[in-house]
Amino acid sequence: MKIPVGILGATGSVGQQFIHLLRDHPFFEITALAASERSVGKKYEDVVTWFLPTPMPDFVKEMIVQPCEPTLPCRLVFSGLDTAVAGLLETSFAQAGYQVISNARNHRFDEDVPLVIPEVNSDHLSLIQHQSYGDGCLITNPNCSTIGLTLALKPLLDTFGIEALHVVTLQALSGAGYPGVSSLDILDNVIPYIAGEEEKIRQEPLKILGTLSENHIQPADIRISAQCTRVPVIDGHLECVSIKLKTKSTKEDIIHIWERYRSVVQDMDLPMAPKQPIHYFHNPAYPQPKLHRNLDKGMAVSIGRLQACPVLDYTFTLLSHNTIRGAAGTAILIGEYLTKKNLQI
Amino acid sequence: MKIPVGILGATGSVGQQFIHLLRDHPFFEITALAASERSVGKKYEDVVTWFLPTPMPDFVKEMIVQPCEPTLPCRLVFSGLDTAVAGLLETSFAQAGYQVISNARNHRFDEDVPLVIPEVNSDHLSLIQHQSYGDGCLITNPNCSTIGLTLALKPLLDTFGIEALHVVTLQALSGAGYPGVSSLDILDNVIPYIAGEEEKIRQEPLKILGTLSENHIQPADIRISAQCTRVPVIDGHLECVSIKLKTKSTKEDIIHIWERYRSVVQDMDLPMAPKQPIHYFHNPAYPQPKLHRNLDKGMAVSIGRLQACPVLDYTFTLLSHNTIRGAAGTAILIGEYLTKKNLQI
Amino acid sequence: MKIPVGILGATGSVGQQFIHLLRDHPFFEITALAASERSVGKKYEDVVTWFLPTPMPDFVKEMIVQPCEPTLPCRLVFSGLDTAVAGLLETSFAQAGYQVISNARNHRFDEDVPLVIPEVNSDHLSLIQHQSYGDGCLITNPNCSTIGLTLALKPLLDTFGIEALHVVTLQALSGAGYPGVSSLDILDNVIPYIAGEEEKIRQEPLKILGTLSENHIQPADIRISAQCTRVPVIDGHLECVSIKLKTKSTKEDIIHIWERYRSVVQDMDLPMAPKQPIHYFHNPAYPQPKLHRNLDKGMAVSIGRLQACPVLDYTFTLLSHNTIRGAAGTAILIGEYLTKKNLQI
Amino acid sequence: MKIPVGILGATGSVGQQFIHLLRDHPFFEITALAASERSVGKKYEDVVTWFLPTPMPDFVKEMIVQPCEPTLPCRLVFSGLDTAVAGLLETSFAQAGYQVISNARNHRFDEDVPLVIPEVNSDHLSLIQHQSYGDGCLITNPNCSTIGLTLALKPLLDTFGIEALHVVTLQALSGAGYPGVSSLDILDNVIPYIAGEEEKIRQEPLKILGTLSENHIQPADIRISAQCTRVPVIDGHLECVSIKLKTKSTKEDIIHIWERYRSVVQDMDLPMAPKQPIHYFHNPAYPQPKLHRNLDKGMAVSIGRLQACPVLDYTFTLLSHNTIRGAAGTAILIGEYLTKKNLQI
Repeated sequence: MKIPVGILGATGSVGQQFIHLLRDHPFFEITALAASERSVGKKYEDVVTWFLPTPMPDFVKEMIVQPCEPTLPCRLVFSGLDTAVAGLLETSFAQAGYQVISNARNHRFDEDVPLVIPEVNSDHLSLIQHQSYGDGCLITNPNCSTIGLTLALKPLLDTFGIEALHVVTLQALSGAGYPGVSSLDILDNVIPYIAGEEEKIRQEPLKILGTLSENHIQPADIRISAQCTRVPVIDGHLECVSIKLKTKSTKEDIIHIWERYRSVVQDMDLPMAPKQPIHYFHNPAYPQPKLHRNLDKGMAVSIGRLQACPVLDYTFTLLSHNTIRGAAGTAILIGEYLTKKNLQI
Repeated sequence: MKIPVGILGATGSVGQQFIHLLRDHPFFEITALAASERSVGKKYEDVVTWFLPTPMPDFVKEMIVQPCEPTLPCRLVFSGLDTAVAGLLETSFAQAGYQVISNARNHRFDEDVPLVIPEVNSDHLSLIQHQSYGDGCLITNPNCSTIGLTLALKPLLDTFGIEALHVVTLQALSGAGYPGVSSLDILDNVIPYIAGEEEKIRQEPLKILGTLSENHIQPADIRISAQCTRVPVIDGHLECVSIKLKTKSTKEDIIHIWERYRSVVQDMDLPMAPKQPIHYFHNPAYPQPKLHRNLDKGMAVSIGRLQACPVLDYTFTLLSHNTIRGAAGTAILIGEYLTKKNLQI
Repeated sequence: MKIPVGILGATGSVGQQFIHLLRDHPFFEITALAASERSVGKKYEDVVTWFLPTPMPDFVKEMIVQPCEPTLPCRLVFSGLDTAVAGLLETSFAQAGYQVISNARNHRFDEDVPLVIPEVNSDHLSLIQHQSYGDGCLITNPNCSTIGLTLALKPLLDTFGIEALHVVTLQALSGAGYPGVSSLDILDNVIPYIAGEEEKIRQEPLKILGTLSENHIQPADIRISAQCTRVPVIDGHLECVSIKLKTKSTKEDIIHIWERYRSVVQDMDLPMAPKQPIHYFHNPAYPQPKLHRNLDKGMAVSIGRLQACPVLDYTFTLLSHNTIRGAAGTAILIGEYLTKKNLQI
Repeated sequence: MKIPVGILGATGSVGQQFIHLLRDHPFFEITALAASERSVGKKYEDVVTWFLPTPMPDFVKEMIVQPCEPTLPCRLVFSGLDTAVAGLLETSFAQAGYQVISNARNHRFDEDVPLVIPEVNSDHLSLIQHQSYGDGCLITNPNCSTIGLTLALKPLLDTFGIEALHVVTLQALSGAGYPGVSSLDILDNVIPYIAGEEEKIRQEPLKILGTLSENHIQPADIRISAQCTRVPVIDGHLECVSIKLKTKSTKEDIIHIWERYRSVVQDMDLPMAPKQPIHYFHNPAYPQPKLHRNLDKGMAVSIGRLQACPVLDYTFTLLSHNTIRGAAGTAILIGEYLTKKNLQI
């Protein structure tokens, strides 16, 4: 008996990725697709502009799109809703007793809402006990650029401490949703600006890497500088990082610590969990979006080019799939974690 | 009477840009095109794979390609030679009495060879008086990423002093020459590595911004960290910079100093000189390669997104045309400067 | 004293091209920019998303956008209006006494409206004497793919007659307007469909190549088959044509006839007229959008690869700039023609 | 016990696709990777520039590259050799008793060499009985553009007969091998020429669709016209076809016949065989390379936009994966067919 789940924002880019990743899922079965007014009551295949490179799964084609109201036939919903509407809608679902795992940014900094990457801070999930949603709850996953970065930082923080870091992102087009970036703006071009993105990268890692005590998260104390650019790549965010550690370390130690990093979720037999969360490549031209974004089901973080930095301590390059690891995949992993821990239903 | 000039490496990407920029030049007339063995003796149009978006000028089509030997009918040569051969060939031209202005990296760190951006360190050109090339001389222009960056740094250095900076480049395809980067490697991709490029950005600005005393250049004392990436853009290098100044400054002062920056070459009526070397854009999504690379004949540096940096002092984004401002255009500007100053012939 | 002109739909892609081509125009001066409700009353630079690779001309930046109503300070208007609104608005301008030269498809098949490529059928302009617009008139230029194709057909029709042709287009992104095609739809992709385009290519050449007798145009009798695709190219439509002539001809004769083709407008000293309307390239890999779209100010048609066809008679490839030759440039050329002929004001 | 197979030209683009498709293959096991001189004796992972979007399989990384000489530990070899060397090398393997299935064009028109698409003309394989290679044999698969096209033609030929057809291809970059097309030539561009390609499309279908009688193939009698272009797409050739049938037919009948088409190989339980060789899409914007190239393991042909043609009878658009269906996948399917039929070993 699989657990019935609903997708909020099912026609959008994250919604499509939820559907793609949940086809044939061993725990979950999609029983409801919800989207905006103009799609409600129609067949999914008639209202969606499917743009994933893998075909639309047959089982969703004939499903009738539901309104985003808390009357869906499931208790767990994954939300790929747009920020413009996610705030109120997600609250209404939680209040009605649904477990909401959201990819939207609206509730990420609510005091009682955990902002979770399962490999990094699954302990923060206990915050939901302090929520006032009755049987329901509201959990968020971080921004797409934040997830890959924070996963790479976690083992360094644990071992050496981190004082400061600077990151320049080269972000993929799918991060802007659909239709998103006009082809006339990005062909033969890069755009050195993504509204609101730099703020998220400066703030979200501090909450994720923060310390839970009782019902409160004390943010981590790291200075983060970010510059974000959009590049003509379909999927996969590349990030150029320079970092200052608290304790000095050798290059070999850092690589060793990354490659050996395992968290509790790697031992729980969760379908979406990568076997090895962080891969280090010694080829100086790696990682690359086209070659490595799909590593370990798109859930691994690929790192390369660790070098001494004349300004801070080290520079390196990291890559992660922005709509899988950076969005729908992490949300599903949270759902899997909750399920295994019997934290729901 | 125009000054006859030769182009070494005339079939390559920088060679083509030399030809494009020197058509109808008021000072110079191309009288010799030199290239490698396999092209010698043939018509230029039959051996070149012209890939500039503007058509090949008619006057070069029928010119017979010469060997790269110091028997060309001119005294000034612009060299777009490949590093593999530039070292010895350029020396042989200088020794034979030619004035060589080179875009290759081979001689950039020779003690007596100036590494010049005319707006920044035209005073370094006096070094050629200490060269042992008789009537000849050897001058180099910097690497494509270095030129735009160093131009942006110069007024900041003069006014505030610079302690350190970190730069991440998003470099265009034309910087890799022709055929250069395979389309299979770069479509839907970025490559976080360009061999030798990070070293150049760490070292070249120090010589350019260094102090000339007698016949010696004392390098500037700035810590520079660089990470270089290749992106699917035809022309125009974008650079994301974070910088630590010696004297604190306001954002407004920095912008003011950039916009007002003029050097001696802006007053000399040189055809290749930009009217305003540095443009600051207040639109947060600017500068962009496609929109701004051709500003002021491709010789201007475009800057935007100056922001406080939580790690160093400020971050900003800059853009310059890599084969014009970053290569052939700067070399020609050096030639124009020498001509106006009667430093040659 | 220049003639004042207005631009309808000034913020759109064709509107931007009108502005670009009319900066420093010897006949015309832009005195009014008109656009939709949401832009009216604001500065042009604040409402437009300028995406041409050349900077926005200074003189339009501060111009206040007007409503698309026939109260503009000019008598000649170039319309880049969208099909959704062009029908009624253009009629209202013509009725109010404006000369309207339109790029929209709405009125192209009105009985009394000429559909004009000046080099092909400037005689059709006499139709406007039969219009019921009083001092005003309404003239249309053809679809972007049609213009280049029909120009290539005209000399063949005159000399050999044409029975049938088949064309496959590879059309540029700028043809879809802005924002137009989503980058997620077209990066690493081509789309074998452009709504309504095949119909235009099958019908428009028949009217343009038709015969004017009195106040009526007898369409040409040619069977045309078309398949249209969208490709990731910014500007420049490529068309693969196979053609069946009425009189057999040699390859050399056809090329000769194309290269020698001149029309009345080539002798009238019109600023927008190409010197040579049709260029034939013998390089088998030519023409290419990136290399040849800007030939002769973007107003030339480039042709190559003429070969015997085992099914019809000959195949060849042609290229023309879709927003210059295929839209704004041809409209301006019509305006120049009218001006020189004193057919207006 | 799997059958040991060798890959000739293992480092090239088709070679990589062979390796990718043969990982975990139920019939075959790669026991030898052979390539050119400069790679021989080295580990595969050290000499290959792997550019497929899926990671290099682990089992090939440490394999030592062998010379392309008939001393490989296997009897069946798949050849992805370059045309420049394939002719003699493949003959030498066949003469030494190897079964050679080749993707190169060299032997495709040898009288006794079958040119095979298993779904279309597996009966032609009996030609190998007339070869003079002893225990060895030599079989070829067709050109990448030909395979998809000919599969679409086969059921039409069988049912209606075909008089003539015209095809314009929009071919992917991977068809040119690696490094292949320079990014500077194809970004923001299309190239209307691929050397030798049009000839292959005009000739190869005639042999494939020809009739075998005794030891001789009588070519089909169809007039084929082809124009080939290269577009900035990584994988997947799109073809715009117009066709004249011998017997008139309705659109519905044609679609029905395509969708119902099955060949003998669909009933043989061959791992590489598509379940349904031809898919027809009713969405007017389909098929598209990015969306449909991987359909049915990359072995299906996708068709759409069937319309009446004013010049011939019908136009339609087809798509197939050029390095899977159009090269390595079809070669492997030939190998699987031979194996099941006990035509080897």
